[in-house]
Amino acid sequence: MSEVVQKSKLAKVAAGSMGNLTTEQKNEALLLMADALVTESAAIIAANAKDLQRGRELGTSASLLDRLMLNESRIAAIAEGLRQIVELPDPVGDTLETFDRPNGLRIHKIRVPLGVIGIIYEARPNVTVDAAGLCLKTGNAVVLRGGSAALHSNEKIVEVLHGALERSAIPADALQLILNADRSSVDEMLKLNGLIDVLIPRGGHSLIQNVVNNASVPVIETGAGVCHTFIDESADLEMAIRIAINAKAQRPSVCNSMETLLVHEAFAEKHLPAIAEAFRAAHVELRGDSGALALVPSMNEAVDSDWGTEYGDYILAVKVVSGLDEALDHIRMYGTMHSECIVTENAANAERFLQEVDAAAVYHNASTRFTDGFEFGFGAEIGISTQKLHARGPMGLPALTSTKYRVYGSGQIRE
Amino acid sequence: MSEVVQKSKLAKVAAGSMGNLTTEQKNEALLLMADALVTESAAIIAANAKDLQRGRELGTSASLLDRLMLNESRIAAIAEGLRQIVELPDPVGDTLETFDRPNGLRIHKIRVPLGVIGIIYEARPNVTVDAAGLCLKTGNAVVLRGGSAALHSNEKIVEVLHGALERSAIPADALQLILNADRSSVDEMLKLNGLIDVLIPRGGHSLIQNVVNNASVPVIETGAGVCHTFIDESADLEMAIRIAINAKAQRPSVCNSMETLLVHEAFAEKHLPAIAEAFRAAHVELRGDSGALALVPSMNEAVDSDWGTEYGDYILAVKVVSGLDEALDHIRMYGTMHSECIVTENAANAERFLQEVDAAAVYHNASTRFTDGFEFGFGAEIGISTQKLHARGPMGLPALTSTKYRVYGSGQIRE
Repeated sequence: MSEVVQKSKLAKVAAGSMGNLTTEQKNEALLLMADALVTESAAIIAANAKDLQRGRELGTSASLLDRLMLNESRIAAIAEGLRQIVELPDPVGDTLETFDRPNGLRIHKIRVPLGVIGIIYEARPNVTVDAAGLCLKTGNAVVLRGGSAALHSNEKIVEVLHGALERSAIPADALQLILNADRSSVDEMLKLNGLIDVLIPRGGHSLIQNVVNNASVPVIETGAGVCHTFIDESADLEMAIRIAINAKAQRPSVCNSMETLLVHEAFAEKHLPAIAEAFRAAHVELRGDSGALALVPSMNEAVDSDWGTEYGDYILAVKVVSGLDEALDHIRMYGTMHSECIVTENAANAERFLQEVDAAAVYHNASTRFTDGFEFGFGAEIGISTQKLHARGPMGLPALTSTKYRVYGSGQIRE
Repeated sequence: MSEVVQKSKLAKVAAGSMGNLTTEQKNEALLLMADALVTESAAIIAANAKDLQRGRELGTSASLLDRLMLNESRIAAIAEGLRQIVELPDPVGDTLETFDRPNGLRIHKIRVPLGVIGIIYEARPNVTVDAAGLCLKTGNAVVLRGGSAALHSNEKIVEVLHGALERSAIPADALQLILNADRSSVDEMLKLNGLIDVLIPRGGHSLIQNVVNNASVPVIETGAGVCHTFIDESADLEMAIRIAINAKAQRPSVCNSMETLLVHEAFAEKHLPAIAEAFRAAHVELRGDSGALALVPSMNEAVDSDWGTEYGDYILAVKVVSGLDEALDHIRMYGTMHSECIVTENAANAERFLQEVDAAAVYHNASTRFTDGFEFGFGAEIGISTQKLHARGPMGLPALTSTKYRVYGSGQIRE
């Protein structure tokens, strides 16, 4: 039996009893996990040093090494993340609906854990702890398959967390880490129907597409965002610049940042030079269509491929549009249904944009950067779903649950 | 461009505007569709006759021919099904949650259509109308891929429905029927991410497993049910027999019927002969384990493969268990998490069963046959989900929707 099958079976057996845990039992386990990470931080840092050393030998970029690096304060912050999960309400056991049928049957729809959640992710070792905390809080077992770059760190972290779980009511088998760093272990997880109930990929485009295209286990797709901001004719100039700069430049590498700015032609004629100047001051390269170039000739020229690109960088495509209709058409063509914004003082245009744009989050006069579990008030997130099934947009704890119907009878049979 | 791609693109374009339709517009279209089916029933019956003729030539069984057959009264019943969908509340546009953030953002979570739904199904032409009605009522476009046995019937039905849609506010392109009866058209639909938002297979085990195992488009799995009834020590004999007979014999071919009866040994010692007699009177073949055979030697002997089999027939596996724990273990091992029942007068045992059994619907003192959209009061169902993502158990209209977040700001940016 392969490592993946063996560990997934252990996770499934553990999951069988976890729906019965009380919130207090789960919270106690999370606090023990948080304490253990802090107590054992020296050992975790030592393991992390091996990953960093290997990364340097392989010529890993400084920014990736920084994402991989753990120190005392980062471990303390990760442990604090677990303590924050303790504070969140536990959705498991909630009664969502109750209905009485004419034949006397009483039906309750109840939140239950999903079962076994598989997480396939890349280098950042904080995901190991985050994902474990969120899954265990919701009564799920979790099978983690992290990237090889963080293998020593992840192995030590999970060893520390197992030690904490052994002193708790959560079975230690509910947390599994796959050590096989070969791609074959991912391939195996993708087909493990019956043992894994859902897969959540977290990482770059190719990782996510591999999971989406090849999994027979149900997947929650997360990730890609080609997000737009449309500045309408009636927009407030100061607000428009503030929102657009924030959406692009506050953190360009994340999926809810803007990639393309659409500007109403009447507004552009008056204000595009000022907007361009603001982006230049924010060190953002602009790539304009012919309409934008005509007003700001110093821009680079956008080519067709720019409109569908998630730059993840200080680069912005800019297009002048004739109005709301053209903006809607452009977003329909190139958007990834993640986060889309209109800046306008025209209430009817705002309403039409919010109604017609098909995206997980649609904004009137606010930055797309708010598409985030913490910013939405969920207290934590396991990712941002870009699909329409099950969960869409930032996923809080309820996205890690399913439901079941409990039916109370007194001998009813079907006629 | 293949037929599948071409028709799915048309469906996607149509779906783009359907979220804006009012409930009244959609209901009007459904009523026109119902009227057209009745008006054109002679033409539909003539097309159906071709399918029946071909079926007879191919040696199709009488029961399958009966499921395929349409006559005036069946068409009237199908049209009546559409009128019933008109009466159901439209979930699209419902506000599920509203929350205000400390920074002044107001966030609404709104129900929206899923987009384009692909239905892959077998011979029954009533599914063509049912699925079209449910999808259109929820503002979705639908791509139907029915079985070749009903191709003439389906083609005529969709032609009639298109005629009705052309007189309505719903674009006729929102309803697409794939005429290519080759398996390649199914294969193509399974990979059509970006054009089809969700696939719902309806039919036998191999059809569903093909979709689950090979689709990259998100799937809602429906179907298989190996359902159990556990008769506990304290059960009321008359109620236990009534529920067990109903669960098995009222309609053995469907997924919510019972396949295995588990009986507490103390109850079995007193009552298994009477239970066996009741099943014999209902023409049900019994296959017992050694414990059951010891009490009722006239039973056939069950072999290992009986415990995991969905007979869909007048056959029942019977096992004597030492108590609730063994019953729970057996269900964990062999159940398909569809519908499971305990018959008991012991409230603590009932509660433990309902809590611990991981199934879409768990019953205390009622037949598993109630797992059904109509019986649950949903008024209609697109199928019974046997997965844990998105929807679980009978799926009413809300299962055909997704959500989006509408965010209202006044210039907020993320710090």
